Amino acid sequence: MRLRGKKGIRENLEAQKDLVVLDPKQYKGRWAELFGNDRPIYVELGMGKGQFISGMSIKYPNINFIGIDMYDELIRRASEKARAVWNEQEEGVTPPNVKLALTNIEQIEEVFAPNEIERIFLNFSDPWPKARHARRRLTHPRFLARYKEILNERGEIHFKTDSQTLFEFSLNSFADFGLQMTNISLNLHRDGINEEHVMTEYESKFVGQGMNIHRCEVIVGEEALRNYEMSRLNKYK
Amino acid sequence: MRLRGKKGIRENLEAQKDLVVLDPKQYKGRWAELFGNDRPIYVELGMGKGQFISGMSIKYPNINFIGIDMYDELIRRASEKARAVWNEQEEGVTPPNVKLALTNIEQIEEVFAPNEIERIFLNFSDPWPKARHARRRLTHPRFLARYKEILNERGEIHFKTDSQTLFEFSLNSFADFGLQMTNISLNLHRDGINEEHVMTEYESKFVGQGMNIHRCEVIVGEEALRNYEMSRLNKYK
Ligand SMILES: C[S@@+](CC[C@H](N)C(=O)[O-])C[C@H]1O[C@@H](n2cnc3c(N)ncnc32)[C@H](O)[C@@H]1O
Ligand SMILES: C[S@@+](CC[C@H](N)C(=O)[O-])C[C@H]1O[C@@H](n2cnc3c(N)ncnc32)[C@H](O)[C@@H]1O
Repeated sequence: MRLRGKKGIRENLEAQKDLVVLDPKQYKGRWAELFGNDRPIYVELGMGKGQFISGMSIKYPNINFIGIDMYDELIRRASEKARAVWNEQEEGVTPPNVKLALTNIEQIEEVFAPNEIERIFLNFSDPWPKARHARRRLTHPRFLARYKEILNERGEIHFKTDSQTLFEFSLNSFADFGLQMTNISLNLHRDGINEEHVMTEYESKFVGQGMNIHRCEVIVGEEALRNYEMSRLNKYK
Repeated sequence: MRLRGKKGIRENLEAQKDLVVLDPKQYKGRWAELFGNDRPIYVELGMGKGQFISGMSIKYPNINFIGIDMYDELIRRASEKARAVWNEQEEGVTPPNVKLALTNIEQIEEVFAPNEIERIFLNFSDPWPKARHARRRLTHPRFLARYKEILNERGEIHFKTDSQTLFEFSLNSFADFGLQMTNISLNLHRDGINEEHVMTEYESKFVGQGMNIHRCEVIVGEEALRNYEMSRLNKYK
């Protein structure tokens, strides 16, 4: 990956006000306004080069997507990707349901108001394998407490990772935080590529290497929990 | 494994009334009486050749252990094993805290009264990989409902398996049944043999082949749940 000068990238991002949000804190509580509608907002925390969020935005046009990363260069890459996939549909169009926001996830509660978002995607988050860095893992209870704040009554967290140790840590963290898990998979592509879920860049790479992908959903909001509770035992006959 | 004639095995078991229980339903509600004390009762469902229960009975002399299997021949093998490990300590002694019971787990609620047992071990239970056999998996909700009945207020289920698909099914089943999981491990012997947990026969074999062992604990009883809830977030700093 060729990194251009910091200044050049910043200018590039500033010229993309239709897609890129460099000062996301100013939209706290006002994201619906920015999108111009009240559709559900799904956020990917640590989106990298944006393959997932771009694919999702096409697959689910009635959902608003926000991709978050802390690196200028990745926001730029993701902006190119999002435009590219949408331009396949309509030349020159701005992706209507995508915003790419530059921020550190540590400041997530300054970017979103309570109940403002409906789903959080954590895809291939940094595993931080050393025990002394456990607090930095995006599924640590200190992050879960923040996610719970900003998720609405239908709120869910969808998590995928190749890392066995991060997945193990995360299952325990969700359980210890008292959150309801569902659709746990220890090998998402066991029976061949699972087309139901859009792949991320990391996922494409790891699946190509024959690695296991782990996935689970976490039910956070009250309404989501009620819906889940009504359906859960019907899965078993 | 050389199977002796059915009749020979049965005679052998009948001669071991100090250790083997061929008619366990008659002790429903009276296991404490049979052991001669009120210590907690831990049960292994599907114990096989008894390596685990024998090792546990030595390691935890203040717990009463009941090993359950549906095959005469395995009860016989387990009886030899239990006597052997106890006889290393004292020649000719009957294992004081072990009973081996011949029964089908399908009839578990006819063998134990409500609240009679404190822990259930499920070790390397048959995975029943075909979807149409899912009901036979010992972690299916229809079994969990029975376990909940017979476990007491400190009740827990401790589950280990090599099978990725059975473990995945079981995590979902525990979650969907509304049970609290803790100490989930996707690779119990990741950092070398984990000496904390007594190994089973299957485990020794699979670990020797370099396979992953999955493990988790499930908190069932009210008191166990209260204790867990007071400690769970202290694991994270
Ligand atoms: C391992 S990559 C995964 C990228 C993408 N989700 C995928 O699956 O292909 C993790 C991403 O998270 C971003 N990231 C990590 N910590 C972050 C933080 N505290 N705030 C914002 N972004 C972060 C990194 O910059 C990187 O792009
Ligand atoms: C795969 S072996 C595991 C043995 C042992 N727990 C170990 O880890 O080495 C499963 C055991 O469960 C027993 N079993 C399976 N279904 C059973 C049932 N419905 N009732 C009683 N025993 C059963 C089998 O006879 C067998 O000994």
